[in-house]
Amino acid sequence: MKVAKPIQVLIESFSKLPGVGPKSAQRLTYYLLHVPQIQLDEFADSVSRLKKDTVLCSICKNVSETDPCPICGDPSRDGSTVMVVEQPLDILAFEKTGKFRGLYHVLHGAINPLENIGPDEIFVESFLSRITNHKSLITEIIIATNPTMEGEATAMYLRKQMISQTTNHHPLITRLGMGIPTGADLEYADEVTLTQALEGRREL
Amino acid sequence: MKVAKPIQVLIESFSKLPGVGPKSAQRLTYYLLHVPQIQLDEFADSVSRLKKDTVLCSICKNVSETDPCPICGDPSRDGSTVMVVEQPLDILAFEKTGKFRGLYHVLHGAINPLENIGPDEIFVESFLSRITNHKSLITEIIIATNPTMEGEATAMYLRKQMISQTTNHHPLITRLGMGIPTGADLEYADEVTLTQALEGRREL
Repeated sequence: MKVAKPIQVLIESFSKLPGVGPKSAQRLTYYLLHVPQIQLDEFADSVSRLKKDTVLCSICKNVSETDPCPICGDPSRDGSTVMVVEQPLDILAFEKTGKFRGLYHVLHGAINPLENIGPDEIFVESFLSRITNHKSLITEIIIATNPTMEGEATAMYLRKQMISQTTNHHPLITRLGMGIPTGADLEYADEVTLTQALEGRREL
Repeated sequence: MKVAKPIQVLIESFSKLPGVGPKSAQRLTYYLLHVPQIQLDEFADSVSRLKKDTVLCSICKNVSETDPCPICGDPSRDGSTVMVVEQPLDILAFEKTGKFRGLYHVLHGAINPLENIGPDEIFVESFLSRITNHKSLITEIIIATNPTMEGEATAMYLRKQMISQTTNHHPLITRLGMGIPTGADLEYADEVTLTQALEGRREL
């Protein structure tokens, strides 16, 4: 039996999304058949407008409605500290903590030679020139790429570039603390995490 | 920090889908930011057209591009057997087996008093009148509602209605075989399933 074409087309669209397998795509599509047309139109409209109505902030490359973005344009933020993250979602996570009042820079990825993603494919250049242009202002760079192979490689690369570009003095370059996450069970922690927790121990 | 409105709107749209939590909705939305606009437009278009370009088959209530649907309109299918299912997806599952050549009837739900879904909210009436109108042709009704509380209640209700409507003779009414699914481990089977497997045992 052939599935009706409009259904098949939507199943294929859903299947392209990350983490959505063919079964989930089917389930989502058949669910939408029971939803009022006006809600479908709203959904369609929000998909189609997502990129049309947003821009990348020219300073930090975060996705925003305005340029500069609300964070870069906020005079109360501390411009002396810049945190480098891989994705816009990472900014969201840090903003939820309310503990960081500095600025951000979004790389939109990490260096990944296996997938042919080098420094030119992500916003490394814009980050480095931003640091160079404001070097008198910036005192600390927090590299908050993910603790993965790619994130670590990116962190190393950024550090090397910053040190070589600023011969006389460069800002303090820090990396996020590593160790046991809150609520975790030591028994199930992997060896690398435990080693890092041990190395990063602090006086109580 | 406020998320850009177009992003927030799409996150909310995704969150309304079944099985998509707020975190997944965020992830899907930010993923789409990296997708070309033409692909977003195709996705939007397929959502918006899903219901516009499909109809319910007037005979079996399956979702289809044409009325009657390809199955009801296929003269090679066996019109003497009708299988009642809850959802269009169930038809898909049976068609994949290739073992059923009869016709279907989709109820679009099951009787569920807790959610105020009675026989009038699903296609029970259209099913019963179809059976009555073709009673000389139909020899067997296979009730293939889910083996849940709601599905069983629906099966019982349909059986009672069919028997009371056709005083003199009614078609054979069958229910899908119940028992251990292929590839399952007896050790982990629940008591109800095991009891049903025992009751439904067959000579080897």
